Amino acid sequence: MSNNSALEFATENGARFVDELKALLRIPSVSTSPEHKDDVRRAAEFVAAELKRIGMDHVRLIETDGHPLVYADHLHAVGKPTVLCYGHYDVQPAEPLEEWISPPFEPTERDGNLYARGAVDDKGQMWMHVKALESLLTAHGGVLPANVRVIVEGEEEVGGEGIAAFVKEHGDALQSDVALVSDTEMFAPGLPTLCVGLRGMIYTEIEVRGARTDLHSGMYGGAAPNPFFALTQIIAQLKDADGRILIPHFADELQAPTEDELKAWKSLPFDEEHYRETEVGSSDLTGEPGFSVLERTWARPTLEVHGMPGGFIGAGAKTVIPAKAVAKVSMRLVPDMMPQKSFERFRDYVLSLVPKGVSVEVRLIHSGDPIVISTDNPYVRAATDAMQSVFGKDTVFVRSGGSIPIVGDFERHLKIPTLMMGFGLPDDNLHAPNEKFHLQNFHDGIQSIIRFFQNVA
Amino acid sequence: MSNNSALEFATENGARFVDELKALLRIPSVSTSPEHKDDVRRAAEFVAAELKRIGMDHVRLIETDGHPLVYADHLHAVGKPTVLCYGHYDVQPAEPLEEWISPPFEPTERDGNLYARGAVDDKGQMWMHVKALESLLTAHGGVLPANVRVIVEGEEEVGGEGIAAFVKEHGDALQSDVALVSDTEMFAPGLPTLCVGLRGMIYTEIEVRGARTDLHSGMYGGAAPNPFFALTQIIAQLKDADGRILIPHFADELQAPTEDELKAWKSLPFDEEHYRETEVGSSDLTGEPGFSVLERTWARPTLEVHGMPGGFIGAGAKTVIPAKAVAKVSMRLVPDMMPQKSFERFRDYVLSLVPKGVSVEVRLIHSGDPIVISTDNPYVRAATDAMQSVFGKDTVFVRSGGSIPIVGDFERHLKIPTLMMGFGLPDDNLHAPNEKFHLQNFHDGIQSIIRFFQNVA
Repeated sequence: MSNNSALEFATENGARFVDELKALLRIPSVSTSPEHKDDVRRAAEFVAAELKRIGMDHVRLIETDGHPLVYADHLHAVGKPTVLCYGHYDVQPAEPLEEWISPPFEPTERDGNLYARGAVDDKGQMWMHVKALESLLTAHGGVLPANVRVIVEGEEEVGGEGIAAFVKEHGDALQSDVALVSDTEMFAPGLPTLCVGLRGMIYTEIEVRGARTDLHSGMYGGAAPNPFFALTQIIAQLKDADGRILIPHFADELQAPTEDELKAWKSLPFDEEHYRETEVGSSDLTGEPGFSVLERTWARPTLEVHGMPGGFIGAGAKTVIPAKAVAKVSMRLVPDMMPQKSFERFRDYVLSLVPKGVSVEVRLIHSGDPIVISTDNPYVRAATDAMQSVFGKDTVFVRSGGSIPIVGDFERHLKIPTLMMGFGLPDDNLHAPNEKFHLQNFHDGIQSIIRFFQNVA
Repeated sequence: MSNNSALEFATENGARFVDELKALLRIPSVSTSPEHKDDVRRAAEFVAAELKRIGMDHVRLIETDGHPLVYADHLHAVGKPTVLCYGHYDVQPAEPLEEWISPPFEPTERDGNLYARGAVDDKGQMWMHVKALESLLTAHGGVLPANVRVIVEGEEEVGGEGIAAFVKEHGDALQSDVALVSDTEMFAPGLPTLCVGLRGMIYTEIEVRGARTDLHSGMYGGAAPNPFFALTQIIAQLKDADGRILIPHFADELQAPTEDELKAWKSLPFDEEHYRETEVGSSDLTGEPGFSVLERTWARPTLEVHGMPGGFIGAGAKTVIPAKAVAKVSMRLVPDMMPQKSFERFRDYVLSLVPKGVSVEVRLIHSGDPIVISTDNPYVRAATDAMQSVFGKDTVFVRSGGSIPIVGDFERHLKIPTLMMGFGLPDDNLHAPNEKFHLQNFHDGIQSIIRFFQNVA
C-alpha cells in the first residue's frame, strides 16, 4: 500500500469518525462535578475501548486519586522514534446552560461546525490522534511507521494532579522521544500553527490582619488599622501606572525572544484594534509601553489581582472594619524566570511594604514553570512538513500566554520536547457556552497527524 | 407626696421592673429577619400595652413600610416643657449563637449583669424611660412634672427608615422642646456621661469596569485592564500612609473642637495603650499624627474600605481578570462637613484618578449629618444635675465616632436638641455575643431620668 492509503482511509471514513466523536461528546464527563464521577469514568472506558478496537496494545485504565488515566501503546517499529500522544477526555462545566444555542451534551452540526462541550477542548482534538492511529493501522495491516504511546487524562480541567504524579513517579512507563499535544489553537483559520512557548505562573494569596475582631467603623475609624486599605497600599506598589512590575530583580533571568522570533510575530495576521474591540472590549488596552500585545501576553511577566475576599460584600451598607482581608494575586512568568525564586522575591517585596498596624502573610498556592521549546529539532520539521502538505502554507510559531503544566512535566521528568500542534480556532469558545470545533479542521488535523507519524519515521 | 416618692417607688419596685424587662427580652424582635416579623410586632405591642397600663395617653402603633412605631403622650403639665423620649424595641441578630454563655433570648443574671440580646441596646435603656414615667405617674397620682411624648421604633438596627419618614412628614405630631435618647454609654463605670457629638457619614461604592466579560489571565494578562488593580491604585491615593485624607477641600468646613472641649477630653480616664490592647488588639493604632485617639475617632473625618466584591473569592486558584470590581468605601464626617458636598468632592477626586482602560462609577448609598449639640441649654443642666444627684460625680461630655441618624432628623425637622444620656458600659458587647446590661446602671438610670423630668419642670 502507498503512503497515501492511510490518508485515503481517513477521508473515506471521515463521517464515521465524526459520528463516533459525537457519541463521546454525549457523555458529560465534567471532571469538577462529583455528580458526574461515573460519566467521567464512562468517557475513559469509551476511549480505552476504541484504542483496543483499532489494535493498540496494553490498553488499560490507570487509577489515580482522582479520575483514571487511559494508557495504550504500539511499540513494534524497531529503530524508530517513540511519540507520546497526550490528550484529555474531561471537560469544563457547561454552565450557563441558557446561553447555549443547542444543548451542550447533544452535539449539533451548524455551518460546518460541531457544537458541544468538549468539541475542541479536548475530546475532538484527542479523537484526531485516535483516528490517525486507526487510519495508519488499518491501511498498513496493523503496522505503525513509528512507536506510539498514548496517555489520556481525565483531570486536565481540575489541575491534572493524577497525571503529574504518574509522570513524576512512573516516567519510565512513558519513555518516549517527543510528545504530541493537540490542545491549542491555530493563530488564524487555515494557518498551520505550532505553539512553542508557554508562560509559567505563581498563584499567591496576601493575607493582611489588623484588629483582633471586626470593628465598627464609626467607633474605631481613625484608630484601628484597615486591612483592605493596607492591601490597596501594598498592591498599588506592585506595578506602576503603565503596568511595569516593580518587584526588585523579578525579571532578572528573563530571556527576551530572539530577533527572528520577534520578526516572525510581527508578520502574523494580528490587528490590535480589532483584538481590543472583539476580544477584550475595554476602552483601551493596558500593559507595558514599548511592547506589542503579542509580546506583552506571550513574552512578558504580568501580575493580576483576581479577587479580594473579606469584609462586607453584600448589597447595601455595613460599616465594618474587617479584622482581615485577602488578595488573590498571580504572576505569569516567562523563561527563564523560575517559580520558587519569583515567589520569594514577590514575598520579600510585599513584606517590605507592610504599613503600620497590620501583619501580613504571603502564601504560594500553586505554580508552574515557563516553557520555550526549541524549533531546531527533527520533530518540529516533521510536524511543519506535515501541515504544509495539508494546508499548503508554512507553519507559524507562536507562544501562548497561558500555562499547560503537563508540558513542563514532560520536559522535567521525561526529558522530551513537546509539539503543541493544535487545530482549534480563536473563536471556538473554549470554557464558554457554544464551544465548537470547525469540522474541516478536525479532518485536516487527522491528515496532518497521519503525515506527522509518517515523517517522524 | 414629696419629690422623692417617685424615687422611692422605683427603688421598691426595682425587682419587678427587671422581671418585666426580662419578659420583653424573651421576644426575639430581630428586625432584619423576615422570620421574626411577628416577634417584632409582638415586642411593639408589649411596649404599647405597658405604656397604656401606666397611664399614658393616646397610646397607638403607627404603621410604617416596615415595623410599627409605638407612640404615647402625656401632655397635661400646662406651661412646662415637652420631652420627647426616644428608644427602639428591635434588636440585632444573635448569631454566632455558640458564643453565648447563656441563650440570647433567655435573659440570665450573672455577677450583677443581665445577659440577653437587647439588654442594653436598647430594650433595657428604653425600659428605663417607661419605668421612670411609671414611677412619676404612680407616686404623683397620675400627674407628670413635664409634658412627655414617647416614640419607640422597631427598625433602628436596619436603618430606621420608618421613623425618619414619620419625623419628616408628621413632625407636628412629635412637637417637643427636647429629645431624650438613652442608646449610648457611659465613658467609664460610675462616670455620668452625656454624648454631645456624633460623626456623620457617607457610604459609597466605587465600581470599576474593564473588559466586556471576565477574561483568562494567561491569555489576556498584559493587555486587558484589571479592575481590581485600578481600584487599588485609586484607593491608595485617597489617604496617605499616615491616614490623612487626600481628597481636595474635603475638610474645608471642619470646625475643630474648642479648647475647653479638648481640655475636658484630656482629663477623661483613657489610656491609649490599654485601649489598643483590650479593644483593638492590633500591633499599633493608626490614624493622623498629632491627634489623640479620642480626637481621631470623635472629631476627625476618616475613610474606610469595608469590602471589595467581585472576581474570584473562593478557596484555591482561579485565574480570572474580572470584568468589574467594586469597593465599598465610607467616610465619617465631623461638623460642619455636609454629606452631599463631601460626596461630590470625593466623587470628583476619584474620577480624576481613573487609570487607563477602565471606566468608573461612584455611587452614594446613604448618608447622615454630623451633629454637635450645644451644652449651653437648660435641658443639659437638668440632665447633669440629675446624674450628679444619683452618681455623686460631675457629668463628662463626650462625643461618639458613630452616627445616630435620628438625632440629625430631630434637629433638622423638629428643630430640637437631643440629650444622649446613656447608661451602657464600654464592655456591654453591643451587637456581639453576651450582650449585657449592668443592673445597677439600669436602676441608677431610672433614678436619673426621674430626677431629669423633675428638674426640667
